[in-house]
Amino acid sequence: MTTTVAAYAAPSAKAPLERTTIERRAVGEHDVLIDIKFAGICHSDIHQAREGWGEAIFPMVPGHEIAGVVEAVGAGVTKFKVGDRVGVGCMVDSCGECEPCRSGQEQHCVEGNIQTYNGVGKDGEPTYGGYSQKVVVTEGFVVGIPDALALDVAAPLLCAGITTYSPLKHWGAGPGKKVAIVGLGGLGHMGVKIAHALGAEVTVLSQSLRKKDDGLKLGADHYYATSDPATFEELGGSFDVILSTVSAPLDFGAYLGLLKTGGALVNVGAPEEPIGLNLFSLIGGNKVLAGSMIGGIAETQEMLDFCAERGIGAEIELIEAGQINEAYERVLNSDVRYRFVIDAATI
Amino acid sequence: MTTTVAAYAAPSAKAPLERTTIERRAVGEHDVLIDIKFAGICHSDIHQAREGWGEAIFPMVPGHEIAGVVEAVGAGVTKFKVGDRVGVGCMVDSCGECEPCRSGQEQHCVEGNIQTYNGVGKDGEPTYGGYSQKVVVTEGFVVGIPDALALDVAAPLLCAGITTYSPLKHWGAGPGKKVAIVGLGGLGHMGVKIAHALGAEVTVLSQSLRKKDDGLKLGADHYYATSDPATFEELGGSFDVILSTVSAPLDFGAYLGLLKTGGALVNVGAPEEPIGLNLFSLIGGNKVLAGSMIGGIAETQEMLDFCAERGIGAEIELIEAGQINEAYERVLNSDVRYRFVIDAATI
Repeated sequence: MTTTVAAYAAPSAKAPLERTTIERRAVGEHDVLIDIKFAGICHSDIHQAREGWGEAIFPMVPGHEIAGVVEAVGAGVTKFKVGDRVGVGCMVDSCGECEPCRSGQEQHCVEGNIQTYNGVGKDGEPTYGGYSQKVVVTEGFVVGIPDALALDVAAPLLCAGITTYSPLKHWGAGPGKKVAIVGLGGLGHMGVKIAHALGAEVTVLSQSLRKKDDGLKLGADHYYATSDPATFEELGGSFDVILSTVSAPLDFGAYLGLLKTGGALVNVGAPEEPIGLNLFSLIGGNKVLAGSMIGGIAETQEMLDFCAERGIGAEIELIEAGQINEAYERVLNSDVRYRFVIDAATI
Repeated sequence: MTTTVAAYAAPSAKAPLERTTIERRAVGEHDVLIDIKFAGICHSDIHQAREGWGEAIFPMVPGHEIAGVVEAVGAGVTKFKVGDRVGVGCMVDSCGECEPCRSGQEQHCVEGNIQTYNGVGKDGEPTYGGYSQKVVVTEGFVVGIPDALALDVAAPLLCAGITTYSPLKHWGAGPGKKVAIVGLGGLGHMGVKIAHALGAEVTVLSQSLRKKDDGLKLGADHYYATSDPATFEELGGSFDVILSTVSAPLDFGAYLGLLKTGGALVNVGAPEEPIGLNLFSLIGGNKVLAGSMIGGIAETQEMLDFCAERGIGAEIELIEAGQINEAYERVLNSDVRYRFVIDAATI
């Protein structure tokens, strides 16, 4: 039997989000019914709700940073029980059989992972995200949130946390390594916290020094303005890893020049237009330009456990559901420190 | 006391190479005097001799694929003795003190490595390369050529061998891995041999099927024409590593599409103009675009030992020194299988 729940949805790409109701599927054998407590607002929610990334499915209930409590489980569920604190991130299913799925990289499923919203589930129905009271998800795509993490500051970890943790781990951020985080927004502020917790020496590269005090409090050791050309002279050849969290078109040659021999510039944000790149800026110094997309389910659990152990949550502004449209405008103006989180009790 | 030796030099960027004499420095405490037996012709010799890569030093004696026999050593030399079979590659010195130098990546010396020719030595004198009878090199930049390798087929390993070996090793070419080599020229044919010897399943991606028989004989398991659009459909998501040895501007988005999740497209050749790249082609699939420049001295020795053990030499066309200018034209027309090597006895 389906469950009718309240949600905030964009009825079309041009319209503001408004309160509505949606149906959640009956709890199947391997399903978990989650009572949503908090849902983060990710910049990509806005891209998708406004069709900035191409044609989308409407009505759309965004939200892929979900934290809540298990309300019911299917008969075959083994990972969770009623009352468990759990999270759901950017995807709710995948084929489970391809090489990426079998190696714990469900986000790269060759069939395409099933997005938490703006996707189509295995039942052929559109998926609806976290701006809602409840959600039903197959247990394989649900992760546990350790008791040490408050659910509100844990919610953004499900996207912003794993998106920065995965590449920082993969590219070796840790003791003795110098890491730069480009951009201090929702992703960037998690990048700073996580890189610092991993033991790296962390530098923020931000357009201006406006958020310098914040950056240092979040764990950065250094903070530079990229609008100052002296930054690129002073920091030439400095970093083992640069994590770019911005979608502005950077001067990639200049940023590659900040890497040490063998260093990697990893992009989790990216401009929509193609960039111009001289390959000699990679050949000299054996450098790497890489991309990274969220992380797999097992690694998401690992990230949550790591954050719980180190006391890392997101910096959030808690809002009521009625403020979502206003929050969207503020995100577009980079006017949030550093993640809006919707209190789902207000939906 | 300096030694006068015969050499082939380009007197200027517009002129053909001609026989001349040059002075080699007196053998210093840590120097090795090498009686050159063979010198390979690398495409980059032509780029530099014709100032294709910017202003150069003339007269220029090209040649950075040098194989010979030790004729004399300085009092402090410990690595080599008279009669040893040795090689010299793309560089003859570096600062020795910077982080890359200390970590065996002398090619990335922050002061700039001293090129075997078209460079300026620590004595302030121009360096002259392998198209000559003898050369004096500090022992730290001389490598031993194992007895199992004939000197003529060993010469090209000093550039083409290490340029392909180093990235193939670094990016994990080996058993269970699928590796594509783009381009079957001087570099590419070594890439095929080495990737095969490392245990990888090797595919050649060449413009046409013209050299298919050769490619399979060299060790490739598969051979595809990149001029056929079906190639890109059939091979989508196939490779762990793609090594591009060409300087033609590729459709990098299409080649990145041939990589598996987490795969790397490594460039040792590159177009001189900037390429256009959509970063989403790196983010989807956590892909890597990287560059690689030759290899360090210790790794060059490792490569020679590996090639000797596996019986790998270059495929060469041995020429007399008087044929250098003609050989240059043939290289420019891709009309060589697969490396010209000058018999230094004819200089």
